[in-house]
Amino acid sequence: MKAVRLHAYKAPPTVDTVAEPEITGPSDVLVRVGGAGLCRTDLHIRDGWFAGAVPVDLPLTLGHETAGWVHAVGSAVEHVAVGDTVICHPNISCGLCQACRAGQDMRCAEGLNFPGLTRDGGFAELVKTSARAVLPLDPRVEPADVAALADAGLAAYHAVRKAVPVLQPGGRAVVIGVGGLGHIGIQCLGALTPAEIIAVDRNSEALKLAEHCGAHHTVRADGRHVDRVRQLTDGAGAEVVVDFVGEGDAIQDALGMLATGGRYYVVGDGGTLSIPTLQLVLGELEIVGNAVGTADDLAALVRLAMAGQVTVRTALYPLDAAGDAIADLEHGRVRGRATLTPSAGV
Amino acid sequence: MKAVRLHAYKAPPTVDTVAEPEITGPSDVLVRVGGAGLCRTDLHIRDGWFAGAVPVDLPLTLGHETAGWVHAVGSAVEHVAVGDTVICHPNISCGLCQACRAGQDMRCAEGLNFPGLTRDGGFAELVKTSARAVLPLDPRVEPADVAALADAGLAAYHAVRKAVPVLQPGGRAVVIGVGGLGHIGIQCLGALTPAEIIAVDRNSEALKLAEHCGAHHTVRADGRHVDRVRQLTDGAGAEVVVDFVGEGDAIQDALGMLATGGRYYVVGDGGTLSIPTLQLVLGELEIVGNAVGTADDLAALVRLAMAGQVTVRTALYPLDAAGDAIADLEHGRVRGRATLTPSAGV
Amino acid sequence: MKAVRLHAYKAPPTVDTVAEPEITGPSDVLVRVGGAGLCRTDLHIRDGWFAGAVPVDLPLTLGHETAGWVHAVGSAVEHVAVGDTVICHPNISCGLCQACRAGQDMRCAEGLNFPGLTRDGGFAELVKTSARAVLPLDPRVEPADVAALADAGLAAYHAVRKAVPVLQPGGRAVVIGVGGLGHIGIQCLGALTPAEIIAVDRNSEALKLAEHCGAHHTVRADGRHVDRVRQLTDGAGAEVVVDFVGEGDAIQDALGMLATGGRYYVVGDGGTLSIPTLQLVLGELEIVGNAVGTADDLAALVRLAMAGQVTVRTALYPLDAAGDAIADLEHGRVRGRATLTPSAGV
Amino acid sequence: MKAVRLHAYKAPPTVDTVAEPEITGPSDVLVRVGGAGLCRTDLHIRDGWFAGAVPVDLPLTLGHETAGWVHAVGSAVEHVAVGDTVICHPNISCGLCQACRAGQDMRCAEGLNFPGLTRDGGFAELVKTSARAVLPLDPRVEPADVAALADAGLAAYHAVRKAVPVLQPGGRAVVIGVGGLGHIGIQCLGALTPAEIIAVDRNSEALKLAEHCGAHHTVRADGRHVDRVRQLTDGAGAEVVVDFVGEGDAIQDALGMLATGGRYYVVGDGGTLSIPTLQLVLGELEIVGNAVGTADDLAALVRLAMAGQVTVRTALYPLDAAGDAIADLEHGRVRGRATLTPSAGV
Repeated sequence: MKAVRLHAYKAPPTVDTVAEPEITGPSDVLVRVGGAGLCRTDLHIRDGWFAGAVPVDLPLTLGHETAGWVHAVGSAVEHVAVGDTVICHPNISCGLCQACRAGQDMRCAEGLNFPGLTRDGGFAELVKTSARAVLPLDPRVEPADVAALADAGLAAYHAVRKAVPVLQPGGRAVVIGVGGLGHIGIQCLGALTPAEIIAVDRNSEALKLAEHCGAHHTVRADGRHVDRVRQLTDGAGAEVVVDFVGEGDAIQDALGMLATGGRYYVVGDGGTLSIPTLQLVLGELEIVGNAVGTADDLAALVRLAMAGQVTVRTALYPLDAAGDAIADLEHGRVRGRATLTPSAGV
Repeated sequence: MKAVRLHAYKAPPTVDTVAEPEITGPSDVLVRVGGAGLCRTDLHIRDGWFAGAVPVDLPLTLGHETAGWVHAVGSAVEHVAVGDTVICHPNISCGLCQACRAGQDMRCAEGLNFPGLTRDGGFAELVKTSARAVLPLDPRVEPADVAALADAGLAAYHAVRKAVPVLQPGGRAVVIGVGGLGHIGIQCLGALTPAEIIAVDRNSEALKLAEHCGAHHTVRADGRHVDRVRQLTDGAGAEVVVDFVGEGDAIQDALGMLATGGRYYVVGDGGTLSIPTLQLVLGELEIVGNAVGTADDLAALVRLAMAGQVTVRTALYPLDAAGDAIADLEHGRVRGRATLTPSAGV
Repeated sequence: MKAVRLHAYKAPPTVDTVAEPEITGPSDVLVRVGGAGLCRTDLHIRDGWFAGAVPVDLPLTLGHETAGWVHAVGSAVEHVAVGDTVICHPNISCGLCQACRAGQDMRCAEGLNFPGLTRDGGFAELVKTSARAVLPLDPRVEPADVAALADAGLAAYHAVRKAVPVLQPGGRAVVIGVGGLGHIGIQCLGALTPAEIIAVDRNSEALKLAEHCGAHHTVRADGRHVDRVRQLTDGAGAEVVVDFVGEGDAIQDALGMLATGGRYYVVGDGGTLSIPTLQLVLGELEIVGNAVGTADDLAALVRLAMAGQVTVRTALYPLDAAGDAIADLEHGRVRGRATLTPSAGV
Repeated sequence: MKAVRLHAYKAPPTVDTVAEPEITGPSDVLVRVGGAGLCRTDLHIRDGWFAGAVPVDLPLTLGHETAGWVHAVGSAVEHVAVGDTVICHPNISCGLCQACRAGQDMRCAEGLNFPGLTRDGGFAELVKTSARAVLPLDPRVEPADVAALADAGLAAYHAVRKAVPVLQPGGRAVVIGVGGLGHIGIQCLGALTPAEIIAVDRNSEALKLAEHCGAHHTVRADGRHVDRVRQLTDGAGAEVVVDFVGEGDAIQDALGMLATGGRYYVVGDGGTLSIPTLQLVLGELEIVGNAVGTADDLAALVRLAMAGQVTVRTALYPLDAAGDAIADLEHGRVRGRATLTPSAGV
């Protein structure tokens, strides 16, 4: 089968022909990949950012955001059958550790077991995962339309869900970065909270997408955007900032937009946050790191999508055009989520 | 009357004779000061750290942690009468803004109105405050024994209370800094949570106090203390770190002691926190700034003290010995809280 | 001035001419009443239901849901001035007891001090209340349009707010009774949660109002409605039932509609709930009584209304037509909230 | 092997010789039973109370509260091995439904799969359960000492954990019924909250046990006990009542002991709760049904026991003496938990 593989850090991945994965354990599931989202994290993996924190042998098939149809199952898999439409949680959890039993399976004690990061992923015709990572979907769903929920959407929903108790009527939520994650985050904020939503991005097309997704105000990140956010919040700042960038100036901007008692949800990574403890203490600020969400979060997000409360904006690419998708993402030419479509439905 | 006043930043405060304060508004309350705690913040005020963030005209009577007896009341004050034993919340709140109505009066929209910081404070025979800042105590209570609850205790309780939902059975809480705040924080953790408590301090006498206050483990901050905490937590790190130092190495130490999903409660100030966003995100860490607590927190803390679940360790000094108290605090010679005793009971 | 007064239980109130109230205390506020909502509780007061629980001397001016303009203020009132548009929280709280300090002012330790129930209320040209019960509104607001928020809306919002953590995406919320409270409750559910909303009422006009307010399904209470709700919830029952009736069959119906782990929010009163403890335990059901909301709730609800997320459906009556309004309410002829309009703006 | 079996409702169970259970599925686990607690629910099962709600074919081996050593495992079981000391969660959950994924496995969508209730249980030398229901213990633990945690303790902990956010310093918690569950509930309240604990029971020996477990006050249920609890709570009533009886007068007593805003946690079953909705609404009361706890709760409770914060009081009986144990429980002669000891360690 064809697969998009990384052979060396900082080198472009290539489309190779590789052997198909096989069922070897009782809980294994093979998924024929209908859609696999391309994530900024894929660029970070390519560039070796994770090589220290999450070591892996190359070559590696990329792709950690996958939906498709069940192709084969191990002997102990009962909740899905061949042909079912499914979405894959990005991490394979054990189900028995303290975190899993408490519903926090993204903190599984066995650590990351993450197709596309620690083992071969979904930029391929087939991907191998495990029973606990496979969530059945309505058969009418087109996998490429929802694949981006599996990681981009999941991380966005996970952060927004934490912000729900903070966002009372009249509360303000700033979303920094309206890309693959941000445009879903805006919709989640609209569905789950009564907050006034302020979207910030450098790109005016991204701001149009934000407006379409339900942002009440859009602010161009042009150097005066922190002041503009403070104006829009009556000088007080926002109760919540969700930062899908997490690098460069975005971090200090985010801190500058917070109200007293405000909470800063960091989803993007790549930068360094620096703040005097006096500012933290006087402002009673909270800074919250957000990894990907739980399987329970993913199921909830799928329900939002099925109810029409969240829709993914996608730009589809055939598997062979993975290089184009990567180039478009790197040069800021993607609105919403670039999604590869390795296999078609039957 | 006598009062300890700051005439110039970075110069030692002096014991002066000044006019007594007077009732001028209907909600005013004058308190004869039985005890007034000395806080590291008093050193910061003296040194001008707050001059930018919280401007004030000098001279200023210091002291923001006060208990005593009601000396006089304004025409609209009904809930206390002359002679009642009281403890003073350090900030005077309006009672009508959104924050006050929601029980978050320490974030009163009118900003800081803080005797000892923005107006004359409690290192004096009498202090002027307002009805909403005065909490009645059992008349058998000796003000000097509880004055430290009004700020040191209040900040510690406020942070610990936020940590309660995080500290399930088997959870670990590290307390960094076992001084005026820390020794109360340890007792609050013991009363409110089932956590295993690990106390960290440079000083072996402080660690003895920690043990007396209920810490299950004590760790000398000798350079190997981060490793020692990780050993005591089975290599996983602690679910909660409460940092009463907040400056110097304590900040990186605290971050190094956290478990995945851990929360870092910052109470002390004076340093700068710096962390890569990747570390925040992968670890799902939360960093929580803590100001002083609410009036509701203070009442709860007083109930803990009345039930014997929290006891303040004090070192008493007459008002004239304020300079000695300051010197002892600066040189690490105080165990628990240095407390001035300007007035005696009747 | 004119006022609608109850002279004897079970007898119709009459429109009398009475002396105007006067400022006597420093915190007093007189409000010229622009709108005063008529509540089913007014019928219960007339019929003596509260005579035991909340004794009061007759005659009594009814009306506990009021908005208008400030007419006069006592010497200590600073946050509003004569002429300001205001809405009145129905209960006058002390601001200093434990409940008030914790933001739970509807449980003020001084007990009910409730114009229209324990003292003369808002069915009059002027009503006397107190500083803490007066919330400033945007001057463009017409008091008669929002008066119903002060009690009907407040009770509905208060209950819905408690349900927010329970209503995840895909959750179902049943609203029983789409009258003055219910039609606001539906809008609050829509603004604060992603839940699918199912409205139940006997009256088809009320169900049309429910649909207009955002209910996703409407169910006629015709004897088969419990089955219908279970069908709409895939046989599982609803996670949340908010019951604005609270008497007669509504109670058993509500219990019959609940899912395992479901929560039953009781707002209406007048009946008796009866349930085997085995059913409570096996189903892990929760039953939650809801009084009127806090001042903080009222401010939040006003913000929802200002943002257009909640709109009150009113039926306006001049003060002289109070008898007609009462008859219309008793005979189920009111859609939304019947509101008296004692005074006009200047 | 020997097993205590129920052959007909309302008839005494008998000690029979039956075939040993066998491993048939990949997730099966056989546990050699070191201790199996006797529960009031066993009497209810015998008397046919559950025959309607939870149908089962007789004969049935009773016993739903079990600890022991792993005797054999299915091919897919990896987290425990033969010889390991384990405690069994009473319900076998699927691990993949929405409830299980959210950490609410006691509400597993597959319904009750409950040894001792829906299939053969633990009053036998061996019991068959499943991987997800088996929690490893420290090998030094004696199963008979902790078996009662698996159901009695688990239900008590589950209810107390819900009460934690309600019990601030100065809060009061009443425990009704100091038997197998109640004596553990008191210890959990002491470990997890700062509340003042008031224990109520008819039996003075039970009250001595309560005192030993940390109750601050004990009240004999002699007809004046509701008044006594109101006296002990300054006339206000208790913030929390945890009712381990749930039948007869206990229900009205519990409601009579509640403060405004109070919460009534119902754990015992067998009676009927009846309350006017006006009382629910004016008092803002909450009534919370409590089933058995989750696997996460059980692990937390075991950690409390390992830390010495909870100790089970047991009365041990050999399996052959099951009839004596049942008679002692029925006649109120057991203090703490009656526990059968079918097998001894190796």
